Amino acid sequence: MKLAILFGGASYEHEISIVSAITVKEKLSRFELSFIFCDQDHKFYMIDAAKMKAITFSRGEHRKMPQIFLTNGGFEQRGMFGSKKYEMPILNLIHGGDGEDGTIAAMLDFFHIPFIGPRKEASMLSFDKHYTKWFAGSLGVKTLPYEIIRKDDKREIATAYPFIIKPARLGSSIGVSIVREASELDYALDVAFEFDNVVLIEPFMAGVKEYNLAGFSARGEITYSIVEEPQKAEFLDFEKKYLDFSRSDKVAEASVSEVLVQQLRDAFKTIYSPLFEGAIIRCDFFEIEGEVYLNEVNPIPGSMANYLFEDFSGSVQKLLGALPDKKAIKVNYDYIHSISQAKGK
Amino acid sequence: MKLAILFGGASYEHEISIVSAITVKEKLSRFELSFIFCDQDHKFYMIDAAKMKAITFSRGEHRKMPQIFLTNGGFEQRGMFGSKKYEMPILNLIHGGDGEDGTIAAMLDFFHIPFIGPRKEASMLSFDKHYTKWFAGSLGVKTLPYEIIRKDDKREIATAYPFIIKPARLGSSIGVSIVREASELDYALDVAFEFDNVVLIEPFMAGVKEYNLAGFSARGEITYSIVEEPQKAEFLDFEKKYLDFSRSDKVAEASVSEVLVQQLRDAFKTIYSPLFEGAIIRCDFFEIEGEVYLNEVNPIPGSMANYLFEDFSGSVQKLLGALPDKKAIKVNYDYIHSISQAKGK
Repeated sequence: MKLAILFGGASYEHEISIVSAITVKEKLSRFELSFIFCDQDHKFYMIDAAKMKAITFSRGEHRKMPQIFLTNGGFEQRGMFGSKKYEMPILNLIHGGDGEDGTIAAMLDFFHIPFIGPRKEASMLSFDKHYTKWFAGSLGVKTLPYEIIRKDDKREIATAYPFIIKPARLGSSIGVSIVREASELDYALDVAFEFDNVVLIEPFMAGVKEYNLAGFSARGEITYSIVEEPQKAEFLDFEKKYLDFSRSDKVAEASVSEVLVQQLRDAFKTIYSPLFEGAIIRCDFFEIEGEVYLNEVNPIPGSMANYLFEDFSGSVQKLLGALPDKKAIKVNYDYIHSISQAKGK
Repeated sequence: MKLAILFGGASYEHEISIVSAITVKEKLSRFELSFIFCDQDHKFYMIDAAKMKAITFSRGEHRKMPQIFLTNGGFEQRGMFGSKKYEMPILNLIHGGDGEDGTIAAMLDFFHIPFIGPRKEASMLSFDKHYTKWFAGSLGVKTLPYEIIRKDDKREIATAYPFIIKPARLGSSIGVSIVREASELDYALDVAFEFDNVVLIEPFMAGVKEYNLAGFSARGEITYSIVEEPQKAEFLDFEKKYLDFSRSDKVAEASVSEVLVQQLRDAFKTIYSPLFEGAIIRCDFFEIEGEVYLNEVNPIPGSMANYLFEDFSGSVQKLLGALPDKKAIKVNYDYIHSISQAKGK
């Protein structure tokens, strides 16, 4: 079965996308894989599988490989004597900007290329943590209380210390700080505003239990991964997270009650359907006093959260066989015909 | 000054986009115009200006004109002996799907092509009337109360009769009905669900004053159009709206108080900045008991609301000189370098 892994992108998460792609390559060896790299200038290259190493890209060696172009139905390699078309489904593995903000989804949909990944609307709503709050709230899924500060706003914050500051639109903990007292505030805001003009402030609750759950829907049925209790420091800084994107060893299932597993699955399902159809997502939750809170949705999780699935390869295959179709719109020019006739021309 | 008008799209509003483009052509005659047609299969054609007539498209004659392709920096026409590049700013005039849902914006941004029109995030938030409510509410701009019904929900409605039913994601009054009593409900919902899986229900208030205001921001300063009180039936059905998209005669300014004009401008500005930068939008408002309510945002209004601007051509030129830049992201491979060094390879 053919599958092309699309990675890179013009994003702060460009490098972790490369790491993710290298990891997923090993986990999907049963597929006939191709590798499509999107560089920071938005050029696409077809990468030789044997060259799927981080240094290929940091040294710029991808530029010696065939450049390919997006076109209706697939990517195309142009040559002196005609062009070669690559028509296979895509696994969108571009983290952050381009991949998770809806850009790649919009383009693949426009060009009628089937893909695994969030559609543009799902991307938009999960890419901005502010919109995720609206969206989850409208479906009755709890999230932490928050406030928003914009770059030009007065730096007056109502949330009590300690709190956590996050750029509204980045993943991978980039620009995130815990602020314990007023003296730390300005620096933390400056860091966050480096990455976004809008930041979110949420209460920081030490010792709160965190649980991650991944899954996807195929033919109306959701496949859930195991529930993981991530083992981590207070939160992952970028370098730790970077290594986190290369995870490929199966993790232990969290030892939690069946009741909690059901609560997590219910919240996952509410968030997932129908918006995220076509994607394998990971939802990160908090448990506070027996209640489940959505922390964030990762619509393209690091290394596709392969380590959470009993049979990752089989899961990808199952989803590939059940990708959502875009409703076709047929233009019949009825109005133009009727108006032209009325005008007598 | 060069400018290409992009129109068509795979959308229920394909035909009114053609009408819009033909209208705008006359209003922007001071520009060196090109015309790029996106057909319902998502192929692009460079249209001969002399053939900019509705029947060119309904008869399929555009297929005899040069097909062009999206590529980095512009559209490209390929030939036997190399390719010709069209590098000019685009006026996105694709109404509805593709144009107003963020797809075209995502693609033009990705390929670094400057354009007038809403960016993808602005598109997404204004394309879905449900998200517009969230967005406006978060900024303190009032909207009518509403409820949401999904296709598979029970058809139980809390809003009192009469109410108005709208597909969540379409413009141009397509699929919209006023429901005066229970016997009309099922048919109206069936019609709306033809076009979307989610519909909005709002109270219908006969005789409420409506006001439209268009504008745009260039270099931090907003240019407002005149305020129009649209002369219309209870609401425009599709055929009337169709004709509405060909409007080119200047309209009379509504005779309203300075206080109301200021209220409308304040609400417009709150909605516009910074999300809609790069676009000429029209906001449609209600006035109820001295208060202004946002009805909807048209981020690509019919014929660009040319008839509301004192100097439409000058306005387009002013905006073209001040289009927003996307923040460039420079990937330096620091992490990959440091990890490769740590691994000794």
